[in-house]
Parts: sequence; structure tokens; C-alpha cells
Amino acid sequence: LWGLPILASDAISSVAYAGQEMLLVMLPVAGALAYDQLSLVSGAIIVLLLILTLSYRQTIEHYPNGGGAYIVAKDNLGTKAGVTAGAALCIDYILTVAVSISSGVEQITSAFTVLKPYTVIICIAMVLFLMIGNLRGIREASKLFGLPAYAFMIALLLLLIFGFAKIKGGYVAPEPTIKSLGEPITLILLLRAFSSGCTALTGVEAVSNAVPNFKSPSVKYAKTVLLLLSIIILVLFGGTSVLANMYHVVPGERAMLVLIAEQVFGHGFMYYYVTITTFIILIMAANTAYSGFPLLLAVMAKEGFVPRQLSMKGDRLSYSNGILFLSAVASGLIILFKANVTSLIGLYAIGVFISFTLSQAGMLRRWLKTRGKNWVPKAIVNGLGALATTLAVIIIAFTKFHQGAWVVIVLIPILIVLMFRVKRHYENIRKQLKVSQKTLDRADINNKVYTNRVIVPLSSVNKSSIRALKYGKTISPNVTAFCVATDEESAAKVQEKYNELGTPIPLIIKYNPYRKVVEPLLEFIESAEYEYKKGDIITVILPQFVVKRWWQRLLHNQTGRYVERKLLKHKHIVVAVMPLQLND
Amino acid sequence: LWGLPILASDAISSVAYAGQEMLLVMLPVAGALAYDQLSLVSGAIIVLLLILTLSYRQTIEHYPNGGGAYIVAKDNLGTKAGVTAGAALCIDYILTVAVSISSGVEQITSAFTVLKPYTVIICIAMVLFLMIGNLRGIREASKLFGLPAYAFMIALLLLLIFGFAKIKGGYVAPEPTIKSLGEPITLILLLRAFSSGCTALTGVEAVSNAVPNFKSPSVKYAKTVLLLLSIIILVLFGGTSVLANMYHVVPGERAMLVLIAEQVFGHGFMYYYVTITTFIILIMAANTAYSGFPLLLAVMAKEGFVPRQLSMKGDRLSYSNGILFLSAVASGLIILFKANVTSLIGLYAIGVFISFTLSQAGMLRRWLKTRGKNWVPKAIVNGLGALATTLAVIIIAFTKFHQGAWVVIVLIPILIVLMFRVKRHYENIRKQLKVSQKTLDRADINNKVYTNRVIVPLSSVNKSSIRALKYGKTISPNVTAFCVATDEESAAKVQEKYNELGTPIPLIIKYNPYRKVVEPLLEFIESAEYEYKKGDIITVILPQFVVKRWWQRLLHNQTGRYVERKLLKHKHIVVAVMPLQLND
Ligand SMILES: [K+]
Ligand SMILES: [K+]
Ligand SMILES: [K+]
Ligand SMILES: [K+]
Ligand SMILES: [K+]
Ligand SMILES: [K+]
Repeated sequence: LWGLPILASDAISSVAYAGQEMLLVMLPVAGALAYDQLSLVSGAIIVLLLILTLSYRQTIEHYPNGGGAYIVAKDNLGTKAGVTAGAALCIDYILTVAVSISSGVEQITSAFTVLKPYTVIICIAMVLFLMIGNLRGIREASKLFGLPAYAFMIALLLLLIFGFAKIKGGYVAPEPTIKSLGEPITLILLLRAFSSGCTALTGVEAVSNAVPNFKSPSVKYAKTVLLLLSIIILVLFGGTSVLANMYHVVPGERAMLVLIAEQVFGHGFMYYYVTITTFIILIMAANTAYSGFPLLLAVMAKEGFVPRQLSMKGDRLSYSNGILFLSAVASGLIILFKANVTSLIGLYAIGVFISFTLSQAGMLRRWLKTRGKNWVPKAIVNGLGALATTLAVIIIAFTKFHQGAWVVIVLIPILIVLMFRVKRHYENIRKQLKVSQKTLDRADINNKVYTNRVIVPLSSVNKSSIRALKYGKTISPNVTAFCVATDEESAAKVQEKYNELGTPIPLIIKYNPYRKVVEPLLEFIESAEYEYKKGDIITVILPQFVVKRWWQRLLHNQTGRYVERKLLKHKHIVVAVMPLQLND
Repeated sequence: LWGLPILASDAISSVAYAGQEMLLVMLPVAGALAYDQLSLVSGAIIVLLLILTLSYRQTIEHYPNGGGAYIVAKDNLGTKAGVTAGAALCIDYILTVAVSISSGVEQITSAFTVLKPYTVIICIAMVLFLMIGNLRGIREASKLFGLPAYAFMIALLLLLIFGFAKIKGGYVAPEPTIKSLGEPITLILLLRAFSSGCTALTGVEAVSNAVPNFKSPSVKYAKTVLLLLSIIILVLFGGTSVLANMYHVVPGERAMLVLIAEQVFGHGFMYYYVTITTFIILIMAANTAYSGFPLLLAVMAKEGFVPRQLSMKGDRLSYSNGILFLSAVASGLIILFKANVTSLIGLYAIGVFISFTLSQAGMLRRWLKTRGKNWVPKAIVNGLGALATTLAVIIIAFTKFHQGAWVVIVLIPILIVLMFRVKRHYENIRKQLKVSQKTLDRADINNKVYTNRVIVPLSSVNKSSIRALKYGKTISPNVTAFCVATDEESAAKVQEKYNELGTPIPLIIKYNPYRKVVEPLLEFIESAEYEYKKGDIITVILPQFVVKRWWQRLLHNQTGRYVERKLLKHKHIVVAVMPLQLND
């Protein structure tokens, strides 16, 4: 059952912040009254968890090749729904990194309070650590990832057992010292707590994405793992909520799990064991986003919704872009929100719940259309899932609107529009490149229809320019050498040396005080002197120095790049880049 | 006399921090005793100022085309001394920006204390403001720069007049509340204060750089301006030092000039006028570095000591690089030192004083060699200048070593080594490119000595690939089309469509699951199948989409760039980039 722990970190790590954030919604308003209501809201979350589990088990059954929300929504509800799910998931991945790392570091700074002022810096260091690890291919070592998950589960189980035992043994928790408004608990407050608690369910979708990774019979294994995972979340999330109630912990300055562990175990080994394993599982959770995000981008890039550079599955380069992007945006969020979990949580959950909704609604639609065996109960299960998650999305969007959810609500439509514009651009390009049967038949490649003329820009007569002139001669009978000089004196020098070459290739010299090349060259091409005939191609040969060390590259070629880019804006100019290898 | 205020901002703005930093060295140790010693140290600074002024007037006379330290040192003391002066000046420019902006913002936060927590952010905003302004060519409006300098001088003169009058009128300043060790004043403390005060002289060198900018007779005008400038500094620096003494101001939390203005004027118009004009003059001082630094880089780049991209004088591109570099490093310093003037001052002054020393020593050497008219008194003046500034460098390096001067002392040799390595690299390249007379005579450009073979990579048969094939045919009789497919099915599709073209150009299809192009292509070239003959050139034609909007560029070409870079590592491969213009 290695499949469980590897997939589990994202899902089970949420226990570290979901319950705590529920408390933090209620405590400042209601004070000690909050503890009693905590179990009520936790109960609602657990019901939602069970509905989602049943619903997702059906997705697994019918998408044995992996049923990510993007695929399920696109298959059953159409492209727009699929892209919406994709956009929502992109945001979910970014926030998974930001929230998990911030929460992980919060555990550490709660146990080692001297580190508190360095919270943001430690978080950024963790992002860099994951970034570099993933750029270098940490994923291959993923078998090892099972251990921390077990270590964390054991830690929390021991915390629960000893925690309950201590209370049974007569321990009385100190009265909480809460500054609160002492107001009664309102429905809106409960709903806000519920919204925070919904983060407990983030990550359960991972199992349905990963069905093909399970050993055969993979569908059966995946369904079992999902069920097990739900039970674990139920026990750990429910258990820690009850403990928080019993021990009257007041999170805020320090993390809830660390505070409970402190009361249960004192400052002994188990206290640090709980802290460290919680930290590690949260970093692992962030790491799952590092493998999931580039995969999602690759799938969407294949269909043209995101830049094609991200499409080459398995290719280092494309993975790197996704990893760098994820790290940059997550770091930005961490800095912006000062690594404060409570602030970040306002943006979280909504993304993944939108994808839950679309995925369940897609399954419902599927049953209504196909009407296969037993379709009615199946439709009811997925329908219930869709309904419950829709409700959750509305509640989260409404109650967390001012706490950051508005950013996501604004961002998702923007992302969708961008994705469709990218798609449209690729479509347009495809159409422009497409050749009709007629053009294909008429395509007369073998007869020369135009002349190729060559221009060799040079600043002095040296090995590089001689090589370029030779190459020019090889590809065209019509070659011109072109030199930009600052003054007549230097021009005369070049001309003299050029004459010694004894070639009939004409040398054109133009003057520019700043030795700019592009403008005089384009002017010359357009001038009557050059006698350019429409339709002809002009090949400009640019030498490029290939040097051995990276810092030497900074000393060259920039001008060449600039010239190349400027020249290529003209459709009749081909730039031939000629490498010249140099020592030192 | 517009020349005065434009050049003056750098020099006269130092009044805002030099006296204050002298006080801040002595107050915490000696307490109220410090005030009496202030004028002693200020006197020493003023003597140094007078020596420097006399010495620099001779430089102006003999370098009517601009006698920057780099040029004077290189001319008279050799390349090493010149590069040392150049490296020292680079550091001076960076610190001028960091110190001036930090001090400028300190004035503002001293008058508007609510802004204090945002100090660093405001400083970075000012750096960005100057950066953008200079990238867009603020320099052309430099005539306007005269006004703030006059406004600042008037502000300080009024402050001096009313300040002295108020004391004469019987005003008794409140006793300072200083927490100090109450220790006696030692020589080392005086020397440390002297080192801080030396920053009062930073910026006077600007006049000698700018001689050709003065209207004719420029030497005469430049000498007058330098003298005037020295007198202004003398009056303002000396005067504010005496006022600080009389009013017992305690800088630290708030800036000295603002504190004096508060006591003299109360919170009226003049208080804000002094604050704002001081702020503006300091920002202008930072701005002078923005025009000076790229110029210095351009001069050094011309001789190959810094990357050649910075050498094109008057070219936007090269200026931009210098401006961006200056902004980045100055911002880094501001963040690192939290915009604290006292921390930054430890790094300042040493750079410019090294360049002072080299410049004066260069002049001395000049007199000893040339022995022109009146050489003995001239040598004595410059010798005195060299001696005094050498002494200052030693004092600053010694007393400020632990306050940051060590960074500069370590950095300057590193910069010098780097500059010489860059130079050596360019020299090596030049030698490798140089053609001897023999090669020149033998250079047989007109006879074809090798065959040019063409490879056209394509992913499908479309307008772009047809165009590339046509071009290939034009430049060589030996063309091969090359396609990388993921599977046989897609390969068959391409092959079928290619056959319809009816061209004898052979199509080679290779397989790669990730559609990588470079590796299969290089493998193919090296394989026996291709029959590559040593010495032949292979031209690979890569299409490049030219799109209309900037964001569309992100959707293309990255792969092309990557392929191009990889291919160009092989000296027998030329990459011909063929533009293809696309709509939308
Ligand atoms: K979870
Ligand atoms: K999660
Ligand atoms: K997640
Ligand atoms: K000065
Ligand atoms: K200055
Ligand atoms: K300066």
C-alpha cells in the first residue's frame, strides 16, 4: 500500500491548519463558546468528506486512466467547463505550495519561537529547496516519500491516544485567556468557520488523478486507498478538533497542533516529534504540487490552452518552466501575506472546490446521458456530490470574499480568457500555415523562383569575416560585404585591408557615429544603390562567437542577438548565424 | 553660471549627512562634549577641501577635455592605476545613489514621522523613479536641474542667518538628552568623525570631469565654478556644524538639518521648505550618478575593461544596461542596510578618495616628468593634494574598517582582477581573429573549397516548411528534410503529405517520444547514413514566427532559440533563421 502515503501527504497534511483556522474564525468573536461549536462545524466537514469520497470512488471506476477534473469536465461538460476546472486547479496548486509551506514553517516557529522573526525567509528558503530539488529531478526518489506520511500519522495517533488518556486521568486544562468580543455565535460565523474547515478536504482529489500509477487491479486499489485516506482524515481531523476543545488551546501566535502537543507531552521528545513530522508532511504536500502543476500544464498545453513550451511531457525544459513559474508566484504570495496561514487560507479551498464541483457535475451529466447499468443510484451519488460541493463553493465565495477569495474569483475568469486567447492564437497560426491540396500540387520546390542575395556585415577584416565571406560565396553568386565605420580614417583602414583579399565581392562602407549596424544596413537594403527586387531573399550572415565559459558569453553576442531580432522583423531577410569557436 | 548648480547637487548635497554623521560618531561616546570637538574636525575637513580645490584647479587646466580620475591616472601612472581608479569610481557611483537616496528619504521621514516605517519602500521607489527617468532620457531636461540647487542653497543660507540671529537674540537651546558612555574624546574617535566628515567632499571631482561642457573659455569657467563650489561647501558645511553645536541637536532618529530647522523656524513654512529642498537636492545628487556611471563604463568598455555591450556611447541599449545595473546594486545595498545612512556611510568616501589620490598622484608624476613652466609650485600643490588624500584614505580604511569599509577594500581588487580578465579575454579573441599578411594573400574566397549541405527540420508539411525547403534549394543542391515523430502513425501522415509535394528532396524520419529535435538531428548528422565529409558546412534552416504582439512572442520560438543554441555549439553547423510573418 505504498500508494497511500505517497498520495496522502497533500490530503492529510491539511489537518495541520484546517481545525486551527476554524478556531481562529470563532475565538476572537465568541471566546470560549467557540470550542463547543467546533465539533458541530467539524461534523459538517466530515459529512462533506464522506459524500465526496463516495462520489470520487465512482470517478475512479470510470476513469481508470486518471480522472483529473480538467479531463472529466471537458469530456462531459465541454471545453469551457474543462478550461474552468484547469484554471481553478492552477490556482489550487499555487496556493497548496503557499499554504503548506507557510503552515509547515509555522509549526517550526511555534516550537522554536526564536525563529519567529525569520518566518518569511525560512518559507522562501523552503520554496527554493523544493524548486531546486524538482528541477534536478527529486521525483525519482518518491518511494522514500512514504515514510514521513506514516511518521506523521503515528505522531497524531499517539497525540490523540495520550491526549484523551490524560483528560480521562483527570487532567484539567487551564482556562483559555482569550480577548474576545464575547458576542453570540451567528450562522454567518459558523459558515465562515465551515469555509476555513473546507481546506481539510483539499488534496483528496489526488487519488483519482493517479489511478494508472496503482498496481493492478488499479481501480480496485485506488478505490480502497481513497476510502482509507478519508477514514484517516476523519480520525485525525475529528480527533484533533475534539482535543483542541478539551485542552482549550488558543492558536494565533503559535500553531494548534504544537500547542496541543505541548499540553499533552510537555517539552519532551514527543513534542518535537509531532512538530517535526507535521513540518515534514506539509513540505511534502507542497512538493506534490510541484509534480502535479507541470503535468496539468503539459496536458493543457497539448491542446493549446497554455504556451506550447510547456507541452513536452517528460522533457526537462518544459517541466522547468512550470516549476519556476510555480515557485515565483508562490513566493510572491508568501511575501505578500507575510507567510500568514490565516491570510492565505482565504484564497485557498475555493479553487479546488470549483474543480470538485465541475468534476462531480461532469459525472452526473455522464449518467444522465449514457444511462448505463445502475445509472440512477450512481447519478444520485454524483449529484449529491455536485450539490454539496456547489454549496461549499458558494459558502466559501460569500463568507471569504473580503478575506481574499475575491482575488481568486477575479483571477479565474481572467485565466480562462487568457487560455482561450492562447488557443485561438494557435488555431489562427495553424490555419495560416495550412496548405490546401491545390497549393500542395502547385508547390514548385525544384525550380528556383527567386534569387538569394547575401550581405556579410563586418567591422574589420579578420578570420571571422573571411569565413563568412567564403560561406556567402557558397550559398549565392551575389554577395556584398558591408561595414559600418565611425569615421573616414577607420573606414580607409578596413578598405585597404579588404583590398588585399583580392576578391571581387564589393565592400560597402557606411558611417554611423555610434557604430550602429541595423539602421544603416536596412537603409542600404532599401536604397536604390542595392537594387533590391521584390520577392528576392536577402541572407545576412552574422558570426557568433562560441566561448568556453559562461561568463565569457556575457561579453559577446548580445549585439548579435539584437541585430538578429531587428533584421528578422523583415520577412525578406534570413539571418544565417555562423558559429566560430574560440579558446579562452 | 548654470554650470554651477547642475554639477553642484552631488557636491553640496553632502552637507545633509556629513556633519550629522560626524556628530553621530561622537555623541554616543562623549555626550555633550562632542559639540565642542565638532568644529575642530570640521576645520580639518575644510582644510582638506581647500587643498583638494587648489589641486583640482590644476587638473582642470591641463585636462581641458575632461580629467576624470580614470584618464588622469592611466595617462600618468599607467593602466593599472587607471583601472584601480575606475573600479573605485564604480563603487563611488553606486554608493552615491544608495547614500543620497537614503539620506534624502531620511529628511522626509524626519519631518513626516508617520512615513518612518516605509523608509525602505520609499527609497526603492525613488531608485525606480530615477531608473525609469534615465532609461527614458531625463538627462535632456537637465537645464531645469539648476533650480533645486539654488533653492537648497537659499534654504540653508536662510537657516544659517536666522539660526545665528536667534541665538544672538538670546534663545537658549534645551539641554540635549543624550545617552552616552560619558567617556573622554580620544584621537581615534576624532579620526572616525573625520572619516565620516570626509563624505562632505564627495562630488567635487565632478567639475574636472565636465570641463568640455562649460561654455568657452571653458577652462577658466570650470576653475571659477570649482572655487565657487568649494566656498559654498565651506560656508554651508561649516555653518551647519556651528549651528548644530549651538542648538545641541541630537540626530539619530531624525535628520540633523530637519532638527535644526525645527528649533530655528518651528513647524512653519520654512521648516518644510528646508526639508523638501534638502530631499530634492539629494535625489538630484543620486541622479548625477545615473549620468556619470554609464559614461565611465562606456569609456572603460572602449578599452576592453568592461563588457563591450556598454561601449556604444550615445546608444540607448548600452546606457540601459549600466542604468539597470546601478539601480539593482544600489537597491540591494539600500535593502541590506535598511536605508540607514549611518551604516552606508561606512562604505562611502573610500572609493572616491582612492580616485582623488590616484588623480592627484598622477598630476604630481606629470610635473616630475614633464617639468614644464612653473613645475615646482605645481608639483607642490598636487603633491600636497596627493599626500592629504592618501592620508584620508588610510584614516578612513583604518577607522571605518569594521563599519563596512572592508567590503570596499575587498571589492576593489576583485573588480580590478575581473576588469583585467575581461580585457585579456578580448585581447585573446582579437589575436585569434587576426589574420597575418600571408593568410590574407592566400585567402581564396572566390573558389569553393567546401560543399554546403542543407537540412530542413519540419514537424509537418505546411507553408513554413515549404518555404524553408524552397530556400534550401536556392542555397544548396544538397538538401535533406528531417522530421522527428512521436510514433509511426504520425510519421506516416507526414510522409504521405510530403510525397504529394513531388520533390526529389529526401525526407528522413526519426522517432523520439518527447519530440526532441536536437539530439536526433545531431545523431543523424554523425551517422553513416548522412555521409558527412569533414570540412563541409551544414546549414540548418529554422523558421521563426514573427508575431505582432509581445505576449504572442512568449508562445513561440523558445524551442527554436534552444535548438539554435545547441546546434551552434558545433562549428560545422550554420543556423539560418527564416522569418515568417503571421497575423494575430
Ligand atoms: K485534506
Ligand atoms: K492540502
Ligand atoms: K491541493
Ligand atoms: K560634497
Ligand atoms: K556626494
Ligand atoms: K560622488
